[in-house]
This record gives sequence, structure tokens and C-alpha cells, in this order.
Amino acid sequence: MTEHLTATRAGERFAVAIAAATDCHQACIEALSWGLQQRGEPAHLLHARLMLDCAQMCDAARDMMLRSSDFAHQVAALTADVCERCATSCERMGDGMAGCARACRACADACRAIG
Amino acid sequence: MTEHLTATRAGERFAVAIAAATDCHQACIEALSWGLQQRGEPAHLLHARLMLDCAQMCDAARDMMLRSSDFAHQVAALTADVCERCATSCERMGDGMAGCARACRACADACRAIG
Amino acid sequence: MTEHLTATRAGERFAVAIAAATDCHQACIEALSWGLQQRGEPAHLLHARLMLDCAQMCDAARDMMLRSSDFAHQVAALTADVCERCATSCERMGDGMAGCARACRACADACRAIG
Amino acid sequence: MTEHLTATRAGERFAVAIAAATDCHQACIEALSWGLQQRGEPAHLLHARLMLDCAQMCDAARDMMLRSSDFAHQVAALTADVCERCATSCERMGDGMAGCARACRACADACRAIG
Repeated sequence: MTEHLTATRAGERFAVAIAAATDCHQACIEALSWGLQQRGEPAHLLHARLMLDCAQMCDAARDMMLRSSDFAHQVAALTADVCERCATSCERMGDGMAGCARACRACADACRAIG
Repeated sequence: MTEHLTATRAGERFAVAIAAATDCHQACIEALSWGLQQRGEPAHLLHARLMLDCAQMCDAARDMMLRSSDFAHQVAALTADVCERCATSCERMGDGMAGCARACRACADACRAIG
Repeated sequence: MTEHLTATRAGERFAVAIAAATDCHQACIEALSWGLQQRGEPAHLLHARLMLDCAQMCDAARDMMLRSSDFAHQVAALTADVCERCATSCERMGDGMAGCARACRACADACRAIG
Repeated sequence: MTEHLTATRAGERFAVAIAAATDCHQACIEALSWGLQQRGEPAHLLHARLMLDCAQMCDAARDMMLRSSDFAHQVAALTADVCERCATSCERMGDGMAGCARACRACADACRAIG
């Protein structure tokens, strides 16, 4: 029964992380399109690159968690790193990226929780 | 104002289609992992291939709709075709694929609605 | 024998289109990173969005052709449309995008050839 | 000059790893379609899942290396782990997966080399 409870909790953490990665991908793709409309400062390249990395890692983590891959924990840990860096970059960009920053932080937390 | 209402409705249809494509991708990846555990009949190859096609087209449609791409309508129309075929194939596979069939039909409908 | 030759030629056209889609994806991802470093004009948003669409459709077409999907011809036809539009956009952007324009034209031609 | 040489060698290692990841993705998608045609043993599920993981990580690594992402080294290291496990699984599956096993080993080596 303890084992069953542990499995259930692990399943819940996976479900939360899959939902968070899904949201984070969507936030990054949308915010990037919005960000590209703003006048491009030199710093924007690094930010745009991070957004693309973050969106792609979220999709990879989502699929590997959906498949209960043996590598789900490792890809979630790396995705958490990318999401955290992306959140910090979004926060520096100002209010227009605040929603994306929140989605990135939520995904980083959810991915860490399955670590 | 009519123009504004039209834009709002178009935006809602996009949001519905993005959510449906997101669900459909998840359903296909999960159901495929489950399906691969069942004893493989020869027909399963064509089904598995359809599930992979459907999951990939849903991701492409989702991103192109999120970016308000000029090709969003065309990719949504093609995604609706793939989803419909995948739904029919899921229905033939029996009860284990019923949830995936529903997600595919919902995505086909939502993608047709933005056509 | 004629049937065999036809199958062989179809296989060759698929192989050429898979290689062209692979090259085109790579050219778009690289050129987009380079383009983001340039000072952003308002027109760049539409260009960047096209590059992302093109890279994603090329990956979808590549995978569906690799799987000999029933939808390979339809996705190739749509990918050809996206690649052509992307090529034209690259040509307008000047010399820095000339290599990407060529990769897009080659992919459009190869995808049309399997139509 | 030493710095320039180091940069050149790093660039070459990236180019080799990008090409190897591209080949490995293609090999996995093709071999998976072929493998699904064979009569499914229970062990095939784990193998098919690994092939899908490997194909997806190769695409993510390729794009992050193409963008010279800050996370390129980390994603390459994880991709090398997945490729190695996939190669071992392919080798156990017999001769039909030998080509895919070689592509996976080559990608694991190339990704380790940029570590």
C-alpha cells in the first residue's frame, strides 16, 4: 500500500510536470512572437534563443514523461535548468514577459519535483 | 465593432483548436505507449504510424496557430484530415483507444472550425 | 519491371526530399539565430515567424516521408508552399539570408517532385 | 591563434555532432517503422520507446547546437546517454537494427566529444 501510494504520488507529480511543460511551451512560443514585434535590442538575441531552447526542452520532457521513459527524470532536471534561466531572462525583459516568466518558474518547480 | 467581434471569435476558435491539438498530441503519445504493450498484430504498424503522424501534426498546428502564422489555416486543415483518419483507426482498435479516438475527433472538429 | 522502376524512382524522390527538408531545417535554424543578431526592423517579425514555420514543417515532412506515411504527399505539398514563401522572404532580406533562400528553394522543388 | 584554433576545433566538433544527431534521428524513425512491422514481442515496447526518445533528443540536441545554445553541452551529454542505451537495445534486437545501432553509437561519440 505504501508502494501504491508512492506510485500514485509519483504519477501525480508527473501529471503536474506534463501540464506545466505544456503551458511553458505555449507561453514561450507566444511571448517570442510578441517579443519579436518589439524593437530589437542586441540583448534580445540571447533571450529569443533561450525561449526557443525552453519551448523545445518542454516538448521533449512532456513526451518523455508521457511515455514514462527511463530518461524522464534526467530530461526533467535539464528542462528545469533551462526554464529557470529563461524565467530570469523574461523577468529582465519587463512586464510583457511576466506571464512567460511565471510559466517558466512553474515548469522548473514541477520538473524539479519529479527529480 | 463587427470586425472586432469577428476577430474575437476567430481568436476563440484558435484558442479552442490550440487546446484540442495539445490534448490530441498527449492522447496519441500516451495511447501509443499503451498500444505497444499489447501483442502486436500486423495491422498495428499502420495504426502506430498514424498515431505518430497525428501527434506530430498536432504539435506543428499548435505552434503555427500560437504564432498566428499565415499558414495556420492550411496546417489546421491537413491536421484535421490526419486526426480524422487516426480517430477511425483508434475506433477499430477497440476500447483501449476510445479516449484517444475522442481527442482526435475533437481536434479534427476544432481545426475544421478555423478553416 | 516498369512498376519496380516506378517504385525505385519514387523512393529516390523521397530520399532527395528527405535530404532537402533536413538541409532546409538546418539552414532556417542557423539563419534565424544569425538574423536575430542583426538590428531588428519591424519586417523582421514576419520573417522570423516564417523561418520557424519552415523549420517545423520541414521536420514534420521529413518524419512523415521517413515513415512512408499516407499523408507524406499532402504534408510535402504544404511544406513546399511554406518553403517557397520563406525563400522569397529570405531573398528580400539580403545577402546574409542567400544560403537559406537556396535551401528553401531546393526543398520546395524536392517536395513538389513527390507531389 | 591558439584561441582561434580552439574555436575552429570546437566548431568542427559541433558540426560533426549536428550531422551525427541528424543521421541518428533518421535511423531511429526508419528502423522504428521497420521494427513495428515485425511480430511484436513484449520486449519491443521498451525498445520502441527508446527509439522515440532517441529520435527526439537528437532533434533537440541538433537545434540547440545549431543555435549555439548555452545548454548545448548539457543536452549533448544527455543525448549521448540516450543514444548509448538505444544502441545497446538495437544490438540485442538483431541484424535488422544493426544500422541504427551504428548511427546511435556514432551520435553518442560525437555528442561526448563536445562535452
